[in-house]
Amino acid sequence: MTDGAGSPVLARTVLQQCVHARLVVKPAEEQAPEEWVEIQRGMVVYICFFKGATEDIVQKMVNSLLHVKLCESDSGRRVSVLELPGSVLIVPQATLGGKAKGRSMQYHGNIGKEEGLQLFASFVSQCETELASSGKCAEAGVAVKHGTYGNRQVLKLDTNGPYTHLVEF
Amino acid sequence: MTDGAGSPVLARTVLQQCVHARLVVKPAEEQAPEEWVEIQRGMVVYICFFKGATEDIVQKMVNSLLHVKLCESDSGRRVSVLELPGSVLIVPQATLGGKAKGRSMQYHGNIGKEEGLQLFASFVSQCETELASSGKCAEAGVAVKHGTYGNRQVLKLDTNGPYTHLVEF
Repeated sequence: MTDGAGSPVLARTVLQQCVHARLVVKPAEEQAPEEWVEIQRGMVVYICFFKGATEDIVQKMVNSLLHVKLCESDSGRRVSVLELPGSVLIVPQATLGGKAKGRSMQYHGNIGKEEGLQLFASFVSQCETELASSGKCAEAGVAVKHGTYGNRQVLKLDTNGPYTHLVEF
Repeated sequence: MTDGAGSPVLARTVLQQCVHARLVVKPAEEQAPEEWVEIQRGMVVYICFFKGATEDIVQKMVNSLLHVKLCESDSGRRVSVLELPGSVLIVPQATLGGKAKGRSMQYHGNIGKEEGLQLFASFVSQCETELASSGKCAEAGVAVKHGTYGNRQVLKLDTNGPYTHLVEF
């Protein structure tokens, strides 16, 4: 897995804008209904790490994804999710590491489960810290929510245009 | 824009599985409510063409995307959208061509509007032909729906897990 410059891609993210998103974090069981998290206006981050990714990459990712100007403000300008300010829903998405091989998808480049979980947790935690340290975000009451690593991600998304972006690291 | 092997990327698609998706194809006007299309179970294809893409690539894309096994059948097996059989919602998504440059996204690699529209229309039409020629699809009443090229894509998505994939050509 390499990017255009030949360096290996260590993480892949797909970003979508939303006005509301709702993600199941614990499926229903016999005695208990499903549990879910939701955000209102903000950004959904689908994320996948590849073999070779380490903790070093996480800060760079958080810094880039929270500051890149791809949200639409009320005035129609492009601003970052921190500037909006908007909430962030982080969705672990191992399928993003897939590579088409004939008619099958292969996921050989994906990081191992334990390491992936650790990087995912670190990514979530650093996003939370960044949002918490923004006065504008705290005042607006926006938040970071996330799915459960390794689970099926049952997602409902409501957008005013997803403005889907791919950002690789 | 190049892939890992150094060849230029001519088209980028992001695929998501859905149980229902609804896309506005004509915004509301003073005298008229908005118009939309919808699909039930199937696959959403977000699509963007880059400079250099030509008609040659479309057939290969349609063949690959409709036959790659990344939908979940009732028994939990991975099957293609034609085998499912599921519907296909095609969403033009120029933002997918973006490249982060500092804190802005740049779209210099995107194909021109006229050419992009032509390739998009051709992609839609070839998907329609493929689905129509599948007895299983015809019998199940699945369909190809698509957004309006160049418009804002107001999308609602309901999934049992989006299983987001990236496939480039």
